[in-house]
Amino acid sequence: MTAIEHFWAVVPAGGAGTRLWPLSRSSSPKFLRDLTGGGRSMLQETYDRLAPLAEERFLVVTGRGHRDAVAEQLDALGGDAILAEPSARDSMAAIGLAAALLEQADPDAVMGSFAADHVIGDVDAFGDCVRTAVRVALDGWLVTLGIEPTFPSSAFGYIHLGDPLPDHPGACSVREFVEKPSVSVAEDYLATGQFRWNAGMFVVRPTVLLDLLAASDPAFAATLREIAADRSLLEERWPALPKIALDHAVAEPAAAAGKVVMVPASFGWDDIGDFDSLATLLEDGTATGATVLGDPSLVRMLDASGLVIPQRGKVIAVIGLDDVVVIDTPDALLVTTRARAQDVKQIVGELKATRPELT
Amino acid sequence: MTAIEHFWAVVPAGGAGTRLWPLSRSSSPKFLRDLTGGGRSMLQETYDRLAPLAEERFLVVTGRGHRDAVAEQLDALGGDAILAEPSARDSMAAIGLAAALLEQADPDAVMGSFAADHVIGDVDAFGDCVRTAVRVALDGWLVTLGIEPTFPSSAFGYIHLGDPLPDHPGACSVREFVEKPSVSVAEDYLATGQFRWNAGMFVVRPTVLLDLLAASDPAFAATLREIAADRSLLEERWPALPKIALDHAVAEPAAAAGKVVMVPASFGWDDIGDFDSLATLLEDGTATGATVLGDPSLVRMLDASGLVIPQRGKVIAVIGLDDVVVIDTPDALLVTTRARAQDVKQIVGELKATRPELT
Repeated sequence: MTAIEHFWAVVPAGGAGTRLWPLSRSSSPKFLRDLTGGGRSMLQETYDRLAPLAEERFLVVTGRGHRDAVAEQLDALGGDAILAEPSARDSMAAIGLAAALLEQADPDAVMGSFAADHVIGDVDAFGDCVRTAVRVALDGWLVTLGIEPTFPSSAFGYIHLGDPLPDHPGACSVREFVEKPSVSVAEDYLATGQFRWNAGMFVVRPTVLLDLLAASDPAFAATLREIAADRSLLEERWPALPKIALDHAVAEPAAAAGKVVMVPASFGWDDIGDFDSLATLLEDGTATGATVLGDPSLVRMLDASGLVIPQRGKVIAVIGLDDVVVIDTPDALLVTTRARAQDVKQIVGELKATRPELT
Repeated sequence: MTAIEHFWAVVPAGGAGTRLWPLSRSSSPKFLRDLTGGGRSMLQETYDRLAPLAEERFLVVTGRGHRDAVAEQLDALGGDAILAEPSARDSMAAIGLAAALLEQADPDAVMGSFAADHVIGDVDAFGDCVRTAVRVALDGWLVTLGIEPTFPSSAFGYIHLGDPLPDHPGACSVREFVEKPSVSVAEDYLATGQFRWNAGMFVVRPTVLLDLLAASDPAFAATLREIAADRSLLEERWPALPKIALDHAVAEPAAAAGKVVMVPASFGWDDIGDFDSLATLLEDGTATGATVLGDPSLVRMLDASGLVIPQRGKVIAVIGLDDVVVIDTPDALLVTTRARAQDVKQIVGELKATRPELT
């Protein structure tokens, strides 16, 4: 796989992965963890799949508190490749700052923004898809990678497709981005064949992205460009930036204005939002009851099935419970079911008030 | 409460409490644990309720491996009060040896044998019942305390009652001891009013007990008496003793011969055989979902109920599971349901082969 000239990988590394508590904590979030048992964190796997395309051209945007951990995990990158946000301002500010810096550094840059905590199955197909997206982005489009849905998920947003793009076979315009639907609405979406999952993956020339932002919020775009021109302004100007997702700030209005293109992606994708989705990812079809992240010899299942994550060296026995989720860590234990995996966030919400050191 | 002259408390302290794993281990069995959260082990609670009746007249029979732990927990007792068995030979040998030693030491002795790992609700009622049993035993009967059944349990053996005893109001002869029945058979038992739970509590003059044993197994009784006369024989003779429960060796044949009397007991009793029974014992009616043995502030229940035993300092969150059992220890975790609590022994059986240090 050859690198793509002037292609920059932008990796926003944020989010606590609240629904993966107690595995994921604000001090040790999902993207810093190895959730697949392969020996690499999700951030490292993200780097591994992008490095053949971007070589050393990376910008990882993360919280100040995670800067050192990110640098340690990505020790092949120089310090300049890691941007520490003074505070969390959501994805538009994070990715927008990266765009502004790249606009300054490389007039020919095309950036691709990929979250640090997603799982991708077929890395070669991913590379091909990014390569296509870069070609389309060079024509001035905001390109989104549209994941082929495999089931009517209510956990993801959708991309509503428009007409095919004459110059780029396979690509087509984006009519709109739609929020997470109910399962029945998602079923309707899939039946039309005109909808794809929105994985929040964008490929775009930095100037195009910032100009799209400027169209809806000129001051926001101007501030990002001022910071990029004079980094000493970061501390002062950052806190005043709007806290808004890139989807709302740019992608949705740009789609309405006919400026977004979808490149089809079918490389196998998941954002591992909760333990149900992690269990699905880890299932290998040969499991005899338990899907284990860790040492399977520690787990004893008797008339039981589900996802079990043991601590180092500690035996876990489960009897008479199906689709259970047992996540054992040194200071916190979660016991629930795959069906209730989303409700972990309620526990975390309560703990933030009473035992914040555990969240 | 005044002491009972010549009354000796015999306390067999054995049994691993397999179905209470991982709380109970062979190295730290049920009787050495505080299972009620009251700050005293079950052995210590057994001592506490018998000491007002027996004063210093105790014989605790335990395995050699537990001798030091028993002595430490019962530091008010002298070393002679603790008999260490060279190996486990079941209850007839253990209680029979105590009987033989008492026969030698105190010709007027009446012994009461009470397991070290049972829970009793009303200690005063227990004392009154033992006092009555001693009076009956002085007439030469083998006396068993018959627990008034509160539900048709299939976990306990039953005592089938015969005719009232003219000399001792409330007491009556025992027709037979019956093994653990099915629930429907237990329902039939309760409907007759002629059945009581067999808690394995016997009050008897040592000579009567040994003579009853001699009637069915003369060599067994003779060996016990020889060991009592010359303690140096213990090591050599003990391993050859039959491995048999007192119920089978003496109580059942004695009942058939019309030599057993039941004294009614209604002091609230449980042998806490498994986590279902422990949960019932600990329920206080005010629980909001969880019955916790330990610090309740560590437990978070969301649409969940059941028994939770946390480690020191570690938070346990349970979501969407009713009647769950979560027992967390530093090296082993059990997750099951109250309905499956009996099946813990299958896990322990498997671990004995693969991870014996955990059992």
